[in-house]
Amino acid sequence: MSFAVTILGCASAKPTVNRHPSSQAVNIHEQYYLVDAGEGAQQQLIRYGINPLKIRAAFISHLHGDHVFGLFPLISTLGLYGRRTPLDVYAPAPFGEMLGAHLRYFDTELPYEVVWHEVATTRHTLLFENRTMEVWSIPLRHRVPCAGFLFREKEPPLNVDKFKIVKYGLSIAQITAAKRGEDVALETGEVIPNGELTYRPYRARSYAYLSDTNFSARAANLCKDVDLMYHEATYAAAEQRSARDRGHSTTTDAAKAALKAGARRLVIGHYSSRYKDEQLLVDEARELFPETWPATEGVTYTIEKES
Amino acid sequence: MSFAVTILGCASAKPTVNRHPSSQAVNIHEQYYLVDAGEGAQQQLIRYGINPLKIRAAFISHLHGDHVFGLFPLISTLGLYGRRTPLDVYAPAPFGEMLGAHLRYFDTELPYEVVWHEVATTRHTLLFENRTMEVWSIPLRHRVPCAGFLFREKEPPLNVDKFKIVKYGLSIAQITAAKRGEDVALETGEVIPNGELTYRPYRARSYAYLSDTNFSARAANLCKDVDLMYHEATYAAAEQRSARDRGHSTTTDAAKAALKAGARRLVIGHYSSRYKDEQLLVDEARELFPETWPATEGVTYTIEKES
Repeated sequence: MSFAVTILGCASAKPTVNRHPSSQAVNIHEQYYLVDAGEGAQQQLIRYGINPLKIRAAFISHLHGDHVFGLFPLISTLGLYGRRTPLDVYAPAPFGEMLGAHLRYFDTELPYEVVWHEVATTRHTLLFENRTMEVWSIPLRHRVPCAGFLFREKEPPLNVDKFKIVKYGLSIAQITAAKRGEDVALETGEVIPNGELTYRPYRARSYAYLSDTNFSARAANLCKDVDLMYHEATYAAAEQRSARDRGHSTTTDAAKAALKAGARRLVIGHYSSRYKDEQLLVDEARELFPETWPATEGVTYTIEKES
Repeated sequence: MSFAVTILGCASAKPTVNRHPSSQAVNIHEQYYLVDAGEGAQQQLIRYGINPLKIRAAFISHLHGDHVFGLFPLISTLGLYGRRTPLDVYAPAPFGEMLGAHLRYFDTELPYEVVWHEVATTRHTLLFENRTMEVWSIPLRHRVPCAGFLFREKEPPLNVDKFKIVKYGLSIAQITAAKRGEDVALETGEVIPNGELTYRPYRARSYAYLSDTNFSARAANLCKDVDLMYHEATYAAAEQRSARDRGHSTTTDAAKAALKAGARRLVIGHYSSRYKDEQLLVDEARELFPETWPATEGVTYTIEKES
């Protein structure tokens, strides 16, 4: 029951020798989701031991090249690998047109389908769900339509306390009712409240990806109590004006968003190429939000299961 | 007066952790030319100390993604760097359409011009020249229209032998005539043949890039006496059938092409991902053509000036 984020790229638009543009692999319950796909994403997946064929869906925040140029080569390579499973891509318009051009020029005989789902970047909507998790869009404030993504486990099913089963002599039918969240009436007429019989085996976990964006109180509020927040911090605090003008954030903006959301941990990235050492950015953010960590390529941030 | 080739990528279509798809930087007289541009080409340029802004022109052999996906991100980044100089791109059709789509979706405000020059892949034609060098297309045999490129120094201007100037008491006018290749008539009426007065300061150097292709005697013949030949060798000799069916070459094909051309050195690359160690491919080619070397990323093959 994994819940982990592997950093594949942490640069902003100008890549450097050691930093690829934005991309992450989110592993939830052994299903992989690609979040943004800057140039080189497929090679980074392989480098960090993630089979590209395992990517279930891709979530693209916005259509600047440094967040999407790596998706098209990945689509081609998955074809060479013989993928048959459709690949769902969640991205703002006009991604469908770009995809059409790519398929027309490079992949006329792709052996699997790429299915585009439009992300409406101004609304907080449910984009994707399966039995155990869901992904929501988070409207962001960038120069072009842009949405972050909130990955959330669904509440796990209730467990029934074994000692209570014995204590009250519960039948299979009564146990099943308790698992559904119902109170249970005993033969004596006594009603045992569900809360006394059951417990959640673990707390539902969550991860928010917020890039690229100016500080947005609305976005932070939509990530209430998130376990892990990735927030771009392209600039140091002193570059507030550059950040604002270009639709980006400073370290202070990222820390403020994490504070406002009540996040447990913050990871910053999308560093401008001017910062050779990201530690100074991390140190700045830590002044406001001590649990700040750097997006370092190859590092996996795991959210542990807690009861 | 450099003449050198730096390997940026040596993989075939499926990249591996250590191998990027095809790309090379050719440095002729301190002007840089990009030859093919697989994904990651811009980062590879930076990695190996070549300023992407110095790229004068790009030569794209064919429009398979592993030879061109890296060009579009490079075009974007050069815009961020503030390039003003036009970038000439030599590529087969319909590159112009692809470029149009790229500019429309990603670079509507590019501060420099990208100028597409169509390469007619069935003809051996002069594509580009300046005062000291020229680039010719070499028709290749691949699954899609594909051309290699022959980079050739022009013959350097004649030097006049200092000792002969003294011996015959040549005037400035006579020296200039000799430099133009003319015989010189002395005041005595004696005519000194140009060959006695002048010499070439160095031999014109050449480099041929042949990828992707089946073995082609015609291509080899067009590269007569080339100093350095890059020839793809996707497969080992035993995979002759796979190579032929897919429009690729084996190590034997590459060695045969080098032999037929009378090349001085051969570099092989575009290795299938099945070969973890390229040495076995090099060893195979060396059986036929001993001066075979591997396309290893970051390695620069220099053609020294010789008189």
